[in-house]
Amino acid sequence: MFRSHDSYEKAFCYRLLLALSLFSVVASLGAEGGKEPILLEQAKQFFKPLPETMATAEFPTPPERVSLGKRLFFDPRLSADGMISCATCHRPALYGTDALPRSIGVEHRVNPRNAPTVLNAALQDWQHWRGDRANVEEQASKSVLGHGSFGNPNEEAVLAKLRALGYTPAFQSAFPEANEPLTLENFGKAIGAYERTLVSPSPFDNYLKGNTEALGPQAKKGLGIFIKTGCIACHNGVGVGGQALRKFGIKKNYWQATGSEVVDEGRYSITQNQTDKYVFKVPSLRNVAMTPPYFHDGSVTTLPKAIRIMAQVQLGKTLSQQQIKAIMVFLNSLTGELPADFQQAPLLPPKAFNALP
Amino acid sequence: MFRSHDSYEKAFCYRLLLALSLFSVVASLGAEGGKEPILLEQAKQFFKPLPETMATAEFPTPPERVSLGKRLFFDPRLSADGMISCATCHRPALYGTDALPRSIGVEHRVNPRNAPTVLNAALQDWQHWRGDRANVEEQASKSVLGHGSFGNPNEEAVLAKLRALGYTPAFQSAFPEANEPLTLENFGKAIGAYERTLVSPSPFDNYLKGNTEALGPQAKKGLGIFIKTGCIACHNGVGVGGQALRKFGIKKNYWQATGSEVVDEGRYSITQNQTDKYVFKVPSLRNVAMTPPYFHDGSVTTLPKAIRIMAQVQLGKTLSQQQIKAIMVFLNSLTGELPADFQQAPLLPPKAFNALP
Repeated sequence: MFRSHDSYEKAFCYRLLLALSLFSVVASLGAEGGKEPILLEQAKQFFKPLPETMATAEFPTPPERVSLGKRLFFDPRLSADGMISCATCHRPALYGTDALPRSIGVEHRVNPRNAPTVLNAALQDWQHWRGDRANVEEQASKSVLGHGSFGNPNEEAVLAKLRALGYTPAFQSAFPEANEPLTLENFGKAIGAYERTLVSPSPFDNYLKGNTEALGPQAKKGLGIFIKTGCIACHNGVGVGGQALRKFGIKKNYWQATGSEVVDEGRYSITQNQTDKYVFKVPSLRNVAMTPPYFHDGSVTTLPKAIRIMAQVQLGKTLSQQQIKAIMVFLNSLTGELPADFQQAPLLPPKAFNALP
Repeated sequence: MFRSHDSYEKAFCYRLLLALSLFSVVASLGAEGGKEPILLEQAKQFFKPLPETMATAEFPTPPERVSLGKRLFFDPRLSADGMISCATCHRPALYGTDALPRSIGVEHRVNPRNAPTVLNAALQDWQHWRGDRANVEEQASKSVLGHGSFGNPNEEAVLAKLRALGYTPAFQSAFPEANEPLTLENFGKAIGAYERTLVSPSPFDNYLKGNTEALGPQAKKGLGIFIKTGCIACHNGVGVGGQALRKFGIKKNYWQATGSEVVDEGRYSITQNQTDKYVFKVPSLRNVAMTPPYFHDGSVTTLPKAIRIMAQVQLGKTLSQQQIKAIMVFLNSLTGELPADFQQAPLLPPKAFNALP
């Protein structure tokens, strides 16, 4: 069963009220001009710097589990046609995306929505555009069975592949206390453990930690506009998004502004609640400058156009070219360092195939 | 026009005669036992250690060209469906292969033959199983237009993509003396320059350089058997193969031994010369233990089976399990270090899409 959008909406409203009351105090002090230290103090109310790891008590990241998860993440032999790995839609060279409007899975099956970056993804309150996967662990264990992603018919088919590829000892090391370490749930947990290490700290994080030199004047101006225009209503918190479900097209139908080929009803297609119509997860804006195309259907290819459309359809505002430019410079400050353990491929030795006779 | 197999055959025969005359001298001294330093001296007659780079006067590797070539190598946006890059068939995690029997290109088009590793590939006298591409540069520039690989319709389509993705300045830096740096030929040269840096030195190279401790007793025994059995007739030189075209199935039809689904006539399908029937490039055995499945059609999944079949169909010999095991241990000594610049993905910033308004 899925919770309706309403319950999130209430929690969101409280957060927004708190944020806006702070905002009203500082607005008169001239946030748009980027004056220090007012802007920094204001930013701290809406945003948080990245943690060093995204591990939790429920989802820890012991090294053996991370190491296994990394190999699984990059292993195309796990898909039905041997072509698709997690790294197909979440490529290191493309900052954890595939640069496609909508992702392509096994046997060239085109998926309904755009692949968001895997970097910092575990910080989100939901996974997937419709918010129908609870966490990165569930995302991984369901994708390996998805018709349009990995295309495996059932759990046993996946486990048989893992055994044949020689992964059994690695599962035993990664889950030493489990009676049966090699399970689909642990497959998801291992990939999730790896993904929980993929944090990409950016200049904006340095800024939030107090280094006011980390952003240039134009980025600070953009941050001020980002706050004052109201973008922070949805894009806030540690992920600068990723922690709310919201209707896309509050002031105007999104598909008219974006030229979308398909009208996607979003979360409504799962819950059948009218309040969920056109509701999607608010995407995190971390690394947004590196991860076009934009929106759930990848219908917009450039960042300035995406900014202009969001202001129009969500806030009913028309931004000037100068304002858009400043916001772009600010968003560029959200581009983080690519984690070394993401950029470097693992080795997938084919031991099982080459056992000595 | 393609040269016939005959001309290669003659050059090959001279080389083989020289090798065998050396062989006859040392054979009586007991190569199979792996006695030092006889085995090393013998090995030096047939093999050469890897060079540090595969650059040539015609195909140099200036850093700007290598850097550009690396980005091109990993960029899936260059293919017709945005899914395929050179690194799709030549994955770092899989030692420069795709672990598929036959590679899969754009729109899930299955290719006729298996993708060999890109590591050390530039050392080969020909590229492709039928020897129909002269060098890695030609391989790259033809693959980007191949129906079953990248699927681009023509040269202009590729150049338009390169421009749109913002590659023009990098081509200017990589080919500073060219009137028109952005050409398909230079596309091939840039990728070739990168590939010419992908050298993977192995324990066997250390051995050839005189470090007799680099191979264990079982590997030395395998090396001796490899020489004495006659594997070195084709698998010799710096690549331990890759430098001759030979009929597959000299003593017995290959497809009966391998269970191949399709009888591939090899080079004959290009030249229509009867002497080229079932003639393929002798593959390099460097990193062979890391790159199953085997043969031009990937019809054999394990190394011991591949060794047994090669002895049968090429040499008319039946190897014992112990001999196969020793050869396997020797072949494992050909597994090199993965080049750091291959294992680490480049960054492909989407600048062209996010130019400031």
